[in-house]
Amino acid sequence: MLDLFCSAIKLDEYARFYKINRLKKYMALIVQKYGGTSVGDTDRIMNVARRIKTFVDDGNKVVVVVSARSGVTNALIERAKSLNKEPDEREMDMLLAVGEQETIALTAMALHSLGVKAESRTGAQAGIHTDFAHTRARIVEITGGDIQKLLNEGKVVIVAGFQGVDDDGNVTTLGRGGSDLSAIALAATLNADICQIYTDVDGIYTADPRIVKKAKKIPEMSYEELLEMASLGSKVMQARSVEFAQKYNVVFEVRSSFNNEPGTIVKSEAPSLEDVVISGVAVDRNQTKVTLSDLPDKPGTAAEIFRKLGEGGIVVDMIVQNIGRGGKANLTFTVSKDDASKAERILRGVCSGLKGANVSLTGDIAKVSVIGTGMRSHSGVAAKFFKTLADNNINIQVITTSEIKISVGISLEDAELAASALHSAFDLDK
Amino acid sequence: MLDLFCSAIKLDEYARFYKINRLKKYMALIVQKYGGTSVGDTDRIMNVARRIKTFVDDGNKVVVVVSARSGVTNALIERAKSLNKEPDEREMDMLLAVGEQETIALTAMALHSLGVKAESRTGAQAGIHTDFAHTRARIVEITGGDIQKLLNEGKVVIVAGFQGVDDDGNVTTLGRGGSDLSAIALAATLNADICQIYTDVDGIYTADPRIVKKAKKIPEMSYEELLEMASLGSKVMQARSVEFAQKYNVVFEVRSSFNNEPGTIVKSEAPSLEDVVISGVAVDRNQTKVTLSDLPDKPGTAAEIFRKLGEGGIVVDMIVQNIGRGGKANLTFTVSKDDASKAERILRGVCSGLKGANVSLTGDIAKVSVIGTGMRSHSGVAAKFFKTLADNNINIQVITTSEIKISVGISLEDAELAASALHSAFDLDK
Repeated sequence: MLDLFCSAIKLDEYARFYKINRLKKYMALIVQKYGGTSVGDTDRIMNVARRIKTFVDDGNKVVVVVSARSGVTNALIERAKSLNKEPDEREMDMLLAVGEQETIALTAMALHSLGVKAESRTGAQAGIHTDFAHTRARIVEITGGDIQKLLNEGKVVIVAGFQGVDDDGNVTTLGRGGSDLSAIALAATLNADICQIYTDVDGIYTADPRIVKKAKKIPEMSYEELLEMASLGSKVMQARSVEFAQKYNVVFEVRSSFNNEPGTIVKSEAPSLEDVVISGVAVDRNQTKVTLSDLPDKPGTAAEIFRKLGEGGIVVDMIVQNIGRGGKANLTFTVSKDDASKAERILRGVCSGLKGANVSLTGDIAKVSVIGTGMRSHSGVAAKFFKTLADNNINIQVITTSEIKISVGISLEDAELAASALHSAFDLDK
Repeated sequence: MLDLFCSAIKLDEYARFYKINRLKKYMALIVQKYGGTSVGDTDRIMNVARRIKTFVDDGNKVVVVVSARSGVTNALIERAKSLNKEPDEREMDMLLAVGEQETIALTAMALHSLGVKAESRTGAQAGIHTDFAHTRARIVEITGGDIQKLLNEGKVVIVAGFQGVDDDGNVTTLGRGGSDLSAIALAATLNADICQIYTDVDGIYTADPRIVKKAKKIPEMSYEELLEMASLGSKVMQARSVEFAQKYNVVFEVRSSFNNEPGTIVKSEAPSLEDVVISGVAVDRNQTKVTLSDLPDKPGTAAEIFRKLGEGGIVVDMIVQNIGRGGKANLTFTVSKDDASKAERILRGVCSGLKGANVSLTGDIAKVSVIGTGMRSHSGVAAKFFKTLADNNINIQVITTSEIKISVGISLEDAELAASALHSAFDLDK
């Protein structure tokens, strides 16, 4: 079923994005990123090398960004914590950077054994300059070092993802999703034709296939749609990488390192995309609903509450405020289930200063959303959305919307039914 | 027995070398080097950190050079070889450098947990500049980076041993014994008061204690004596590190990381040392005797033979040439047992071009040597040496001498007896 769907993608369209034409041997510059699972052991590294070779043999220039082998980073963290419960962040970066440095060298060696010229570069050597925020550094500038020169010498360049260097020469790391960001940022700097993100899923789906049986791989989508999906619990890519790609207009593809199927191409909104009203259904079952009742209805109360939560590192979602009895306000929102008890503790502190105010965790809920840039130009999406849920007797607890998505909070038991029903209603099954 | 011996060292003498006076709190600058066994796991790293702390608490400035945890380098090499039988040397250096980078970060974290300020530096960050010879680079210059600044801030600086950087910014490694060399070279650059080489032996002995029961730890010795010992099979330190120390007059101490005993201090020849005629007895049981017979006795023959062996990377030792029957020459020398079959192959090739010449491997032998700078000014050393062997009915096959040592090749069975007898004869038992 999946395979049939994939082969139905217009392949010339696909080739256009790659600027690869096997007959004309158009030289494309491709940045490929392989995650930790894809380079998990030497056999897999050899598989990665074979894949890189096919792109080289087709006449492309290839820059490869790799992560640490899966498990390596966790083992290093564990070793660090056994020495120091709160390891210094500068030293943590020094430590974690070895994971990718190992992989770049091994990947280069694997390519050599296949007769492919290759050379490795650490983040610092590739000129990935960051700010000073150890363990969560932001990229300030990428010079690319001597990558262009190496490419012109016919070499594949293997770059350590996730790491950079600050202006004092310290090793920094980019935090979660850092290797994706390294790849996309390098693609922007090098003006690459495409950035391929190889991972253990084979693309982005109209819904989670474990929840919605008829979920389909999406051949193309916009940055905005993927950003909404990321914010809605899709774990394929971190929002910061997608935002970076959007800012610098880097076309990228999410695809599997375990097969040769085309994945999902993500790019700025194309006219053709507007025909598709809804591109996907997302389900996030990791939400807890929090209700604050009997708050004084005066300016600044909500701001104060969200400021305290923000200081505690808690992300708030699906905010609804309404006026309750006696001029007091009720405020409902959701937080990640993992943050629920911390959020409750913070909120009890806040409420103790607000006479009569109460906080209650009103249970875990599922957030079900439909996403699609086509919503902007198509009316009736909301109507169809709510009719579908009503037809299925699904009770809605919270609603939030944006320009390109509608989300509802519903009971966990209803999540699967809601997702499947919406998937069908918006013609995603076909 | 050992402990008694150690406590017999004049401790004020010892303190003089350290320039440490606990009462006056003289600030010494100490470079310490810990090998792979000493930092083999997190418990041992914590022990190393505790030891560093005692020196910091005494008011010293400390720079620490560490190796990769034992086993890490071999595991990396194995992984590399599974991908590529002959891994590229540049990539090998990139790969192996992660071993030390892991240790520096972990050691810094361990120090932090003890409340000691510390910061790590890679070889490149410490300004260890090398030539371009990957996997066996030579140090060209050490700037020390910002180490002095960090020391002045009261920080311990942890430097990755074994690694450097070439003028193109590539990671290089220094080859065998590289971490010792990093430490001694840094001590020279920083003008340190002493360089302590922590290892799994507790000093340099008058003989191998496994062979000569009455072997004693040597409290002080000269660079030259240690160099002779290194060339005679002592594996405590590589000759290149000792030569570097000699060239820049770096006083260093070889001592154990598993106890607090003083080790062996190595420095330029001191007047007091001249009283000691012989400082040690060395035994090398890893030699094979090679005899070339019926060589044409004309100039250039031996040179040609040694050139070919040199090209094959074979080190030749204990060379003896004499004239045989009919104006033909015989040439005998020893090679390392590991190189014997390769040497034989090369020599058969050479002999095939020399009419009538024959090559034969005439068995494995032991090389037993006595070493001592005192030999220069004391007569009768050779006489006593040969009388001792004769008294013990030991047959001598080859003899070589230098200014400060006498070596003989004898049968393997006689090695232990010869070493013990010489140890007694030269008053090393006392």
